[in-house]
Amino acid sequence: MYRDRIRLSSLHSKVMSAADAAGLIEDGMTVGMSGFTRAGEAKAVPHALAERAKQSPLKISLMTGASLGNDLDKQLTEAGVLARRMPFQVDSTLRKAINDGKVMFIDQHLSETVEQLRNQQLKLPDIAVIEAVAITEQGHIVPTTSVGNSASFAIFAKQVIVEINLSHNTNLEGLHDIYIPTYRPTRTPIPLVKVDDRIGSSAIPIDPAKIVGIVISNQPDSPSTVLPPDGETQGIADHLINFLKKEVDAGRMTNKLGPLQAGIGSIANAVMCGLIDSPFEDLTMYSEVLQDSTFDLIDAGKLSFASGSSITLSTRRNAD
Amino acid sequence: MYRDRIRLSSLHSKVMSAADAAGLIEDGMTVGMSGFTRAGEAKAVPHALAERAKQSPLKISLMTGASLGNDLDKQLTEAGVLARRMPFQVDSTLRKAINDGKVMFIDQHLSETVEQLRNQQLKLPDIAVIEAVAITEQGHIVPTTSVGNSASFAIFAKQVIVEINLSHNTNLEGLHDIYIPTYRPTRTPIPLVKVDDRIGSSAIPIDPAKIVGIVISNQPDSPSTVLPPDGETQGIADHLINFLKKEVDAGRMTNKLGPLQAGIGSIANAVMCGLIDSPFEDLTMYSEVLQDSTFDLIDAGKLSFASGSSITLSTRRNAD
Repeated sequence: MYRDRIRLSSLHSKVMSAADAAGLIEDGMTVGMSGFTRAGEAKAVPHALAERAKQSPLKISLMTGASLGNDLDKQLTEAGVLARRMPFQVDSTLRKAINDGKVMFIDQHLSETVEQLRNQQLKLPDIAVIEAVAITEQGHIVPTTSVGNSASFAIFAKQVIVEINLSHNTNLEGLHDIYIPTYRPTRTPIPLVKVDDRIGSSAIPIDPAKIVGIVISNQPDSPSTVLPPDGETQGIADHLINFLKKEVDAGRMTNKLGPLQAGIGSIANAVMCGLIDSPFEDLTMYSEVLQDSTFDLIDAGKLSFASGSSITLSTRRNAD
Repeated sequence: MYRDRIRLSSLHSKVMSAADAAGLIEDGMTVGMSGFTRAGEAKAVPHALAERAKQSPLKISLMTGASLGNDLDKQLTEAGVLARRMPFQVDSTLRKAINDGKVMFIDQHLSETVEQLRNQQLKLPDIAVIEAVAITEQGHIVPTTSVGNSASFAIFAKQVIVEINLSHNTNLEGLHDIYIPTYRPTRTPIPLVKVDDRIGSSAIPIDPAKIVGIVISNQPDSPSTVLPPDGETQGIADHLINFLKKEVDAGRMTNKLGPLQAGIGSIANAVMCGLIDSPFEDLTMYSEVLQDSTFDLIDAGKLSFASGSSITLSTRRNAD
């Protein structure tokens, strides 16, 4: 019943196959796709684009938020689709193509891409391909498990393809906080000063007339490959907890600590997990990526609020 | 007529000799002194302190905003006054003492010192020695040619010694913008979004009861040692101007450009000077240190507003 997920009924006529949507992407275009740390990437359209290129070669410049999951960078590379790629990727096949000079690559601080697009230092995307949980009554896009550059790609692109992914729980709606900072040179501070501040909207606000295709998919995100905690990471967690305890004892912090900022990967995940057995309470966290440990800490009653740019979970946690 | 510069008359009784004021600094104290890039340092008291230590040894921990002028770090080192020094210095005698392990030194990003003081990660100064143009009717301190950490040192210290330096023009009053950010964890953005925004006060707000000594001095800042522009720096300036012209031609900037940020030293000074012969107008600049070029550009009608943490000028410019 995907029609429940497209609440602006005039858009129902835009539903099409992934192959037809991929056909809207022309040779030489700049394409912005959702996806951040293998979470929330559009899945069906890039796959169909790679399939099409095997028959009928074409090349695009591809921008994302961070890495794509489901081997999509591998598929696009093997099909020869990528002329240029930015700002981040982790696929070994694509890495080799980059190092061989077959794909031009810009490795960029993830916050810089949109800034350069805004300042017309990069060509704006011709088309954006964004994975969504739903489209609202206003025709706005509710993203899935990541945001990153997705909102700006959709806002900048002349045309937008939306992938409604039925495998994502509709409860994701309401989780997002889409905020577009003001433009330089009259930029003002982003008015977010507490982890639980909400400053934006829960959907990406675009003119629905830009939506040229809607594809229905049903494929989950790639599971996270982080390793479970072990003796070594538990040792790091113990050191961290002891350090923080001493700061509390010295009166420099309360038992709530300051807002935490967590990195990603197995070590960060395991160290954060270690806080479950700490004396600290009512913790808050800013993170790039919310990993299993974030939800373990919430379930343990230790973490009150966490904000991040994507949610990347293990198979175990995804099943919850 | 230094009494005109001490507008809170109850403080007139605090005027004393530099030697008497230096006598208020005891062995083992942590002392915060004004001074940033050899501008606006207290001059008479540290000199008297070095003289006193030759007769009667003592050691202090010394914090400043940046470097001290008038060879004061050299004098204090030779007199054996410095046990610890932070966060920055440029004196060769002191550098040798640091490298020989005779003075403990922390080389720190200049923005971190006050943050660590606020969080009680560093011992608060027992006494602050601040150079001033004047003391207001409220007993607040009007700094001279630098601010840096001076305001926070005066606010944190239990006692404050003020050096009224008659060699500084009283027109400096009104130039400063003293703003104390809110404390973590409820820190809010600093509400300064344009170069000519004013968000603070023109004097350092302290309880005048903390002022334990006022010393009258009459010694100018050390002149800047920057070299005048030459063919090479003019070449760099030409490249910069051509680059910026192309950005304007491409519609990515207006002829006013964005706010500039200038580094310090001979090259930055000469490159900024090169903008005098540019087509750009109504420029604005954020800088750490305002050098000769800042005022050359203002006089040439090119620069509308500049903000910085200190003013370090050549002998020529100081004479203007």
